[in-house]
Amino acid sequence: MSDVDVVAESIESMKVRGARDIAIAAAEALRDLVKEGANLTELKIAGEKLKAARPSAISLPNAVDYCIYLSEGNEVMPPEQFKEKTVSDIESYLTELNTSLERIAKVGAELIKDGETVMTHCQSDTVASIFRKAYDDGKKIKVLATEARPRHQGHLTAKILAEYGIPVTLIIDSAAHYMMKKLRVDKVFFGADTVTVDGDLVNKIGSSQIALAAKHLDIPVLVAAESLKFNPRSIFGRDVEIEMRDPKEVAEIPGVEILNPAFDVTESEYIDMIITEDGVMPPAAAYSLLREKYGWEILK
Amino acid sequence: MSDVDVVAESIESMKVRGARDIAIAAAEALRDLVKEGANLTELKIAGEKLKAARPSAISLPNAVDYCIYLSEGNEVMPPEQFKEKTVSDIESYLTELNTSLERIAKVGAELIKDGETVMTHCQSDTVASIFRKAYDDGKKIKVLATEARPRHQGHLTAKILAEYGIPVTLIIDSAAHYMMKKLRVDKVFFGADTVTVDGDLVNKIGSSQIALAAKHLDIPVLVAAESLKFNPRSIFGRDVEIEMRDPKEVAEIPGVEILNPAFDVTESEYIDMIITEDGVMPPAAAYSLLREKYGWEILK
Amino acid sequence: MSDVDVVAESIESMKVRGARDIAIAAAEALRDLVKEGANLTELKIAGEKLKAARPSAISLPNAVDYCIYLSEGNEVMPPEQFKEKTVSDIESYLTELNTSLERIAKVGAELIKDGETVMTHCQSDTVASIFRKAYDDGKKIKVLATEARPRHQGHLTAKILAEYGIPVTLIIDSAAHYMMKKLRVDKVFFGADTVTVDGDLVNKIGSSQIALAAKHLDIPVLVAAESLKFNPRSIFGRDVEIEMRDPKEVAEIPGVEILNPAFDVTESEYIDMIITEDGVMPPAAAYSLLREKYGWEILK
Amino acid sequence: MSDVDVVAESIESMKVRGARDIAIAAAEALRDLVKEGANLTELKIAGEKLKAARPSAISLPNAVDYCIYLSEGNEVMPPEQFKEKTVSDIESYLTELNTSLERIAKVGAELIKDGETVMTHCQSDTVASIFRKAYDDGKKIKVLATEARPRHQGHLTAKILAEYGIPVTLIIDSAAHYMMKKLRVDKVFFGADTVTVDGDLVNKIGSSQIALAAKHLDIPVLVAAESLKFNPRSIFGRDVEIEMRDPKEVAEIPGVEILNPAFDVTESEYIDMIITEDGVMPPAAAYSLLREKYGWEILK
Amino acid sequence: MSDVDVVAESIESMKVRGARDIAIAAAEALRDLVKEGANLTELKIAGEKLKAARPSAISLPNAVDYCIYLSEGNEVMPPEQFKEKTVSDIESYLTELNTSLERIAKVGAELIKDGETVMTHCQSDTVASIFRKAYDDGKKIKVLATEARPRHQGHLTAKILAEYGIPVTLIIDSAAHYMMKKLRVDKVFFGADTVTVDGDLVNKIGSSQIALAAKHLDIPVLVAAESLKFNPRSIFGRDVEIEMRDPKEVAEIPGVEILNPAFDVTESEYIDMIITEDGVMPPAAAYSLLREKYGWEILK
Amino acid sequence: MSDVDVVAESIESMKVRGARDIAIAAAEALRDLVKEGANLTELKIAGEKLKAARPSAISLPNAVDYCIYLSEGNEVMPPEQFKEKTVSDIESYLTELNTSLERIAKVGAELIKDGETVMTHCQSDTVASIFRKAYDDGKKIKVLATEARPRHQGHLTAKILAEYGIPVTLIIDSAAHYMMKKLRVDKVFFGADTVTVDGDLVNKIGSSQIALAAKHLDIPVLVAAESLKFNPRSIFGRDVEIEMRDPKEVAEIPGVEILNPAFDVTESEYIDMIITEDGVMPPAAAYSLLREKYGWEILK
Repeated sequence: MSDVDVVAESIESMKVRGARDIAIAAAEALRDLVKEGANLTELKIAGEKLKAARPSAISLPNAVDYCIYLSEGNEVMPPEQFKEKTVSDIESYLTELNTSLERIAKVGAELIKDGETVMTHCQSDTVASIFRKAYDDGKKIKVLATEARPRHQGHLTAKILAEYGIPVTLIIDSAAHYMMKKLRVDKVFFGADTVTVDGDLVNKIGSSQIALAAKHLDIPVLVAAESLKFNPRSIFGRDVEIEMRDPKEVAEIPGVEILNPAFDVTESEYIDMIITEDGVMPPAAAYSLLREKYGWEILK
Repeated sequence: MSDVDVVAESIESMKVRGARDIAIAAAEALRDLVKEGANLTELKIAGEKLKAARPSAISLPNAVDYCIYLSEGNEVMPPEQFKEKTVSDIESYLTELNTSLERIAKVGAELIKDGETVMTHCQSDTVASIFRKAYDDGKKIKVLATEARPRHQGHLTAKILAEYGIPVTLIIDSAAHYMMKKLRVDKVFFGADTVTVDGDLVNKIGSSQIALAAKHLDIPVLVAAESLKFNPRSIFGRDVEIEMRDPKEVAEIPGVEILNPAFDVTESEYIDMIITEDGVMPPAAAYSLLREKYGWEILK
Repeated sequence: MSDVDVVAESIESMKVRGARDIAIAAAEALRDLVKEGANLTELKIAGEKLKAARPSAISLPNAVDYCIYLSEGNEVMPPEQFKEKTVSDIESYLTELNTSLERIAKVGAELIKDGETVMTHCQSDTVASIFRKAYDDGKKIKVLATEARPRHQGHLTAKILAEYGIPVTLIIDSAAHYMMKKLRVDKVFFGADTVTVDGDLVNKIGSSQIALAAKHLDIPVLVAAESLKFNPRSIFGRDVEIEMRDPKEVAEIPGVEILNPAFDVTESEYIDMIITEDGVMPPAAAYSLLREKYGWEILK
Repeated sequence: MSDVDVVAESIESMKVRGARDIAIAAAEALRDLVKEGANLTELKIAGEKLKAARPSAISLPNAVDYCIYLSEGNEVMPPEQFKEKTVSDIESYLTELNTSLERIAKVGAELIKDGETVMTHCQSDTVASIFRKAYDDGKKIKVLATEARPRHQGHLTAKILAEYGIPVTLIIDSAAHYMMKKLRVDKVFFGADTVTVDGDLVNKIGSSQIALAAKHLDIPVLVAAESLKFNPRSIFGRDVEIEMRDPKEVAEIPGVEILNPAFDVTESEYIDMIITEDGVMPPAAAYSLLREKYGWEILK
Repeated sequence: MSDVDVVAESIESMKVRGARDIAIAAAEALRDLVKEGANLTELKIAGEKLKAARPSAISLPNAVDYCIYLSEGNEVMPPEQFKEKTVSDIESYLTELNTSLERIAKVGAELIKDGETVMTHCQSDTVASIFRKAYDDGKKIKVLATEARPRHQGHLTAKILAEYGIPVTLIIDSAAHYMMKKLRVDKVFFGADTVTVDGDLVNKIGSSQIALAAKHLDIPVLVAAESLKFNPRSIFGRDVEIEMRDPKEVAEIPGVEILNPAFDVTESEYIDMIITEDGVMPPAAAYSLLREKYGWEILK
Repeated sequence: MSDVDVVAESIESMKVRGARDIAIAAAEALRDLVKEGANLTELKIAGEKLKAARPSAISLPNAVDYCIYLSEGNEVMPPEQFKEKTVSDIESYLTELNTSLERIAKVGAELIKDGETVMTHCQSDTVASIFRKAYDDGKKIKVLATEARPRHQGHLTAKILAEYGIPVTLIIDSAAHYMMKKLRVDKVFFGADTVTVDGDLVNKIGSSQIALAAKHLDIPVLVAAESLKFNPRSIFGRDVEIEMRDPKEVAEIPGVEILNPAFDVTESEYIDMIITEDGVMPPAAAYSLLREKYGWEILK
């Protein structure tokens, strides 16, 4: 069993999970293959195998395609040089993957000013890193957190940040609009499940309502998303199929249908900027980022 | 101890509660006083006593002031005629109070067309009456209900309507925007805690977010509110003081502040029509209704 | 066969048509009945008979209900006085009906300033009267007229106004937005099929698109509508059932479905003022007009 | 008479027409000139001659300028290598031109989901190709088509699609807003006459009204436009001079001025995405596409 | 020379000025005429004479027409009773005129909450009264005042309020938007030159820009206007002719045209409520107020 | 004392001022250093020294960073080639700096059509150059200029343009909205203090109000800004610290606080296009311009 098979299996069985970890595992497998002397054709076959392991995780095809793309750039080189340069390119990419969280935290924290009240919804490591970095930089910030029914991951967000020393106020999801106004929230930060080509955000159910309220109240909405989360195959958020989770997470009432969508879609016009490891950009630049990272072809 | 004292005490001790029941008790007490021969001055003194019993319930001063207003209209009459006419006027008002729920149900149900999907938030007897009436009229309707954290009164709404035979879908509060779009909701119905002079609505926390989403999706928002709920002393919804309930209803997390507002404010521009026992009116007519019912003076 | 039967038959057979003529015929029949000594009960029976003659013409129930409403106001009088006062009240109403077109023309013309370019869609006698009155008052106006597919009634509008001496420009319906901007139209005037309780307008198909464009270009939209056109039983324009006309008016293409709606709905937020025989009012006052003319009851 | 002269003449006399065919003819003429050994200066002279043949067709200068741009990239090479590389570059561009329609059809069809109702205005081969591709891919789509007065090209659109087996509904242009709402259109597709630097669309008269209505109803508007249609010299749609066609196409009415604009302008904020042979992009990326294809210089 | 002639002369020569003082003088002249035994016809003649004295001051025809309107209500009475009742009615109106400023101050002050920052533009006695009343009521308010070029009446506003003890911040007119946001203004208060039938406000030049900014920032705009300022003959603000003042107030620069408009128009959709001596009402109620005060006829 | 020290001192002491002159001086100093054989490390040290001379002038770090960026591109070359290529690169940049004003004037003038009325606020050499170029090109333009309290630089703008022969109308700042509508302004042109990464504009106090009014009236807003004015370190306009100038420029009133902000922020959604020496671009492209000029790194 080759390394690629092992990694594919680990991803499929969810031994490896989380957008970044999956991407790193796949890129490492491809790098090792190059090291072993694989040519471009062999790399592509391995790439397809890896991508088939979890088709729904956008970071997986993104990482594989990017490695192939890097390899293609070296195609004209003689074999030895190809190997050396491609390994080096993929290593650079791996470094980028490994440091992206830290870089987003740094960039995001610069967007928070001393004394500001920031808001978030549900639980996002990326957003939490930004808040902690701003706090570490000596800024006196306050956080408004929603609880995020049905699984209340927001309680965890509140707990973690409070333990870190940051003042946190927790509210029910329905109180978002009222409390944003009352507490004069300065900025809203969301994590991301996926960012589409036209800059729409697919994120935890409830995000789109908060974004509507933020727009109404003239509060900027910032999305923290590694470029791995950008999906070159998804044009409009509104066309994304949303997963329905187990209704029992919500309630069980005889005769009553219960629907439990996991995510919703925040349209790009409700988002001010997206914070990536490559800098801060407007949602309209999602297209350019994808073009630059993956070339014209990927959008065709 | 006079009847008025007894009634005032019942209201204060919450033996009598609910907007309509409080209004009826107060009006009956004043009617009885007139029957016993009280003049206008005595009525006013009794009215003040009643109003002091529960200052925060808007239906109480509304009912008392309206009875006084009716009495003033008869002021120039000789005592016997004053008594007779005033008792008759207050009786008419009592009839109106007693039948208002039924009338709102009838008017509201006419606004629902066969085959429509309607949505509501939290639990409102008035809205439930409208849905039942539409169903009784033979219309095939579907209801989308939110659960209404933290106390989940929406579960009760769903249960009651489902038992009545109406198809109900229950969702978490955060899913309102997404599911309204997906299920193509035709109309949103809210009950009311208070309607202000400029037509703003104070209602269960979360209402304003749903109204923002409805506006975004071009779905009409209808408010079912007896005229008792209109507050002539409250001009802007934004100036209304919102009650903060026990944080423990939400959660208990060491080091985390929890805020639990009971209501929020939906601005009149997000409301299409208000259904009262006196007919359906645009929110801009709240002012006219108050003028007509209570005269110029009450707004000064 | 009574007079009422004759009139009902004339309305049913469309010998009498046009919103105003139908209303006049019905009011005259009821007035004659009162002259012959009919009491309120008999009047109501006759009214129901008349209303049944053409249920879809809103001016018919409006006129009948208004005559009944006037009669009810005299109910407490002795028979002879009832007859005299009711006949007089209905006569006043008839005078109002007979002069309403002229009054709307006068009021509407005052809203046009010398040198302005006004626009209209399709063909409306009421709007044409306003333009002619402004022209007769010595104002140099220009008219932009759409042709109104499929039957091109706008060609008639253009022809009539041009013959009257008013400079007219005719365009296809699709050019409305572009030409409104290019010719810097000052005001748009629509006639009305129906005005609903919340001030929505049901009018010739295409009106709503022109209103959207006018709003986008900050051009006021004015509706000329006798109070007869206000429908107390229709709350929302969006709930009005729109008549589908013969597809052959549009085209015949094998295998292609052709739909030919006669009207569309312009929501009240796209209308600035409504010109009635009772003066100029904002759409939010449609409710008040109906209340004032027909009382609370009619809206319940 | 050189090849370039022949081609210029063919374009001028309209023997060659259609945006793509003109571009291909011009590019082929320039390629042949390079094959014959022309240097950059000679190419530029030939390019100016070609561009003069039909100054109003934006695809002509776009194609010529792009070929010159490609040639300039090879300027530093020795003559033989210049010839070889430049011929090869222009051949690639010709391949792109020849396959662009097919590529747009493929990309556009991916934006249509099974079961959706799509709408178009007037007649566009590009849009028709997209609909046919979606149908060929097995998607059950419905098409709503406007007739497009005055020449009713929409009848042709309806006929062609119906014969292909796609269910089509045809309406008059004025019914666009009402029927989009009633039939719950999912997406609107337009072709393009020109796309400007700021992403505005110049297209068949009536497009802008449909786009206003689509925005009002939250329906995405998609423009299918080869990059040839992007005009680097036209910044704002509002500054584009619109051609007025023969008034007799509309009607002839004595004393009535008839204006018959061929196109109108849809501002970029009413457009969601533009589908080009290079992928799907937001209108704000029109600027980047032009930059990338034609360099900084062309925008100065 | 009759009293009416004397009063007319005083108004014409501007011995009497200010909206309220003119109205009082005219009403007193008519009351005296009734006392002397004038009948309705004579009153109307006198009314026309008074109105001719200063046609541009809206309070003059408003006051005269209202007195005539009151007189007409008593027309059917025998002469002596007519005199007595009409004098009494006009006296009541005079009382209302004399106390209106105080009543507006009281109502307006109730709209300011303790601790709020309020903003005003230029100089208005009515608005200053509201601020002083709020201050007298013990509320800690702050005032943001614009200077109101070219005559800097805002300096006077600032001076007067500061001397009264109210903290005032003065800014240039251009800083309104920026400082409203920075200082988190809670409410904007304007006086009024005229209010039109559709609720538009004609007020000091610059008001409309502040209202645009307030809307953008979700800050309520309140207009303090006695009902005398409502103009039943002016439908749209946009049709009101604006006075151009002496350019030298601004500057003198050779070769440069200087335009110095005195007022501008704030459209009703930018106004939240109007504070009158009859209570607080939405701008859409301007029509109802005019109807109620002056009857249907005045709007025809 | 080295050249770099001299230049730094000149900038610090404001002997050298103006965004462009500062940039040129810094770039020349660095070029000379390269000529003298400095390596990259030495260049970076010199760059930091220069940047410290006036930290608040965005053109200074922009010019220095860009020279460093150019140098880094040549880092791998042998010393002599590094010197030659880097000097040449910086020379090209200096040419660009020297010609940028002229190029902006040319591009900007092409955006003005014959017969248009254009508006500007305060005094900007760049905008004045555009107007003069349009006038020199034979276009009949009119200019509407605001006076720009408190220092009335707009008087200078008016004077200069009038002397050049261009018809100018001067108004007070408060009259902007009203006069833009009355005179039917076609386009608004602003200069720039700073453009942020998300395309917001920091410019003379009052600009944002004019932009709000322009948006309301559908008038395009164009910003003339050399790329030197783009600040890669400033993401949101709303986070920019605005300088407060001496209150005495406005007035001195005992007891009154006077605040005198120098600039305000116009959000990117109120800006149509930005005119740079590199062409015309939408504000969303500010990010791309910065990326292209300064690379990914600078935005991290």
